[in-house]
Amino acid sequence: MTEKFLFTVLATDGAARLGKLVTAHGAVDTPVFMPVGTAATVKAMFPETVAATGSQMILANTYHLMLRPGVERIARFGGVRQFMKWDGPLLTDSGGFQVMSLSKLRKITEDGVTFQSHIDGLKHHLTPERSIQIQHRLDATVTMAFDECTPFPAEREQVETSMKMSMRWAKRSKDAYVDRPGYGLFGIVQGGIHGDLRAESAQALREIGFDGYAVGGLAVGEGQPLMFTTLDHTVPHLPADRPRYLMGVGKPADLVGAVLRGIDMFDCVLPTRSGRTAQAFTTFGALNLRNAKHADDPRPLDESIDCPASRNYSRAYYHHLIRSEEILGLMLLSWHNVAYYQHLMKGLRDAIRTGTLSAFAAKFAADQAAGEDGDDDAA
Amino acid sequence: MTEKFLFTVLATDGAARLGKLVTAHGAVDTPVFMPVGTAATVKAMFPETVAATGSQMILANTYHLMLRPGVERIARFGGVRQFMKWDGPLLTDSGGFQVMSLSKLRKITEDGVTFQSHIDGLKHHLTPERSIQIQHRLDATVTMAFDECTPFPAEREQVETSMKMSMRWAKRSKDAYVDRPGYGLFGIVQGGIHGDLRAESAQALREIGFDGYAVGGLAVGEGQPLMFTTLDHTVPHLPADRPRYLMGVGKPADLVGAVLRGIDMFDCVLPTRSGRTAQAFTTFGALNLRNAKHADDPRPLDESIDCPASRNYSRAYYHHLIRSEEILGLMLLSWHNVAYYQHLMKGLRDAIRTGTLSAFAAKFAADQAAGEDGDDDAA
Repeated sequence: MTEKFLFTVLATDGAARLGKLVTAHGAVDTPVFMPVGTAATVKAMFPETVAATGSQMILANTYHLMLRPGVERIARFGGVRQFMKWDGPLLTDSGGFQVMSLSKLRKITEDGVTFQSHIDGLKHHLTPERSIQIQHRLDATVTMAFDECTPFPAEREQVETSMKMSMRWAKRSKDAYVDRPGYGLFGIVQGGIHGDLRAESAQALREIGFDGYAVGGLAVGEGQPLMFTTLDHTVPHLPADRPRYLMGVGKPADLVGAVLRGIDMFDCVLPTRSGRTAQAFTTFGALNLRNAKHADDPRPLDESIDCPASRNYSRAYYHHLIRSEEILGLMLLSWHNVAYYQHLMKGLRDAIRTGTLSAFAAKFAADQAAGEDGDDDAA
Repeated sequence: MTEKFLFTVLATDGAARLGKLVTAHGAVDTPVFMPVGTAATVKAMFPETVAATGSQMILANTYHLMLRPGVERIARFGGVRQFMKWDGPLLTDSGGFQVMSLSKLRKITEDGVTFQSHIDGLKHHLTPERSIQIQHRLDATVTMAFDECTPFPAEREQVETSMKMSMRWAKRSKDAYVDRPGYGLFGIVQGGIHGDLRAESAQALREIGFDGYAVGGLAVGEGQPLMFTTLDHTVPHLPADRPRYLMGVGKPADLVGAVLRGIDMFDCVLPTRSGRTAQAFTTFGALNLRNAKHADDPRPLDESIDCPASRNYSRAYYHHLIRSEEILGLMLLSWHNVAYYQHLMKGLRDAIRTGTLSAFAAKFAADQAAGEDGDDDAA
């Protein structure tokens, strides 16, 4: 076990950073994409295949796990990583986001949130202290501060009030957190699309002091231009020597744009969710394998990616599996999509290392726009 | 490519045989269990994991493939094996069984069967000649003669009439078959549960001459005792120097009993289908992982089996995956169950080799009956 939760910037290219995050559960090369293992499983993937794609760190959702199978049950098994047999580092969210999006009868007060489970209707109470304690019981390598994810769109006054409560909750999260060697606690910047509120939030978090800084409340419907503008107003206010994590993002072009703006960490359900809806991300844009035009296509999904799902099977076979509603279709597509994301992240890291990120980003955009045979990006 | 489709009996123990089947697409150790790859996929398994369980040969269904994605499409890709990326030998059934069980508006004449697709209602015609031609186009290593699967129960007269037509169809199948080095054609014994009809059918097939002999029309509701009795009346009439294949069988105890009676080959959907309904086969009987008693059980499914799905995960994790309807649950259970079946087949082969099959069968039955913690065999 390492003694320090350590982040080192190894190279920069413009605002973008190549880094290494050393944790109690292994090292992570940044910029990093974390596949989402919602309920202690990256959907339709074996842990071995997740790792084989080059994924070094994954995310699990506190909200889902506290409701089922329950925190104490997972704690008895030594935490989420042991329970699901994931060897690498694992980040848990605080539960706040999904309380907002999934639960019923939410009631938010200064103390925390009371809500009903979407599974069995049972009532639960989540506070900053309880969320941090749960994430400790889940043995998360990275714990996220408990915050309120401000709705979008919202009036500025509502955004400001919400952000300020999240900052008070961030302080309570820090106070509740039990530091352990190689583990870390991240704060979450809020403030909607308002640059001054984002700056104020970032400053408040720096004063509390965290091992990493997340940008929350984006990718909630504001669109890519506003998201990028908000990053431009937020990232400069974050400390340079700590990892920066853009939560819940995103499409491939979102990742490239955010890395250009200095983001180091990402998570998103998109590669696995798209894998369950017949969509494949490729170097030349997204494919909808349900489309009849793939029925006789002998080409692999993307032969530039070193993954059996990307290289070994024809698009015709994928089309057949999807039309026949065969589980193997979504297993292979999830695998391929995560492999595509990790291939993209490796490309970004290599480009930062060699100082060629602008050229990489330009080629990425051109290839995506070009498509193959007029395939449109379905994402 | 081997020049001969060659079956060699290496050892015997009572009626049971240890053998080797050499084909154009590789060698197979018998007794062999073939996982079922219905629509050119062993459901919820990667070809790599199917092979990793020790599976050497699989089966695909002509009926399903001719309807979707279509024979000519698969032929353009070089056959089922190339289409689905299965390197080993592959056996296709004739389509007859599923025409009976799945299609609509069947009409059977001496010429063949006319039926409507259960997928799109389109009308199809299948004859012995057409079935053999299709299996050739699918590049099946082993082609099955086209037969009528006699319903059960049925009057003796109906069984006899049906069997005799199947024997005429067997001759037409043989005449239509184009021999290729390392490929084989199997005849199918019919005759219901009537020993004399089975003997007559076996004799008729021997006169035609096949590379292997299947026992059809069993595991259709007659129960294990009648199935075993029927095998006792059938197997002695089959040539000793050709492989014997019991179609569509079965539960673990069925395999053991049939091997004791001289059967060399099996196929069944049970391990994968059970994997999709929360059932795990183990050395100590079957488990229903949906059952609440598994919720906190740290034990693996079966640590005697050299497979990650059998050894690496707790029963509690399986229970969680199943209750959460996570795809990984059925992926792992399918993998484990096929691994269990192959583990059992290897045990049977080793026992025949060492002349200890009776002891093996007795221990198998005792272990299955013992269960773990009173688990009942749910199969």
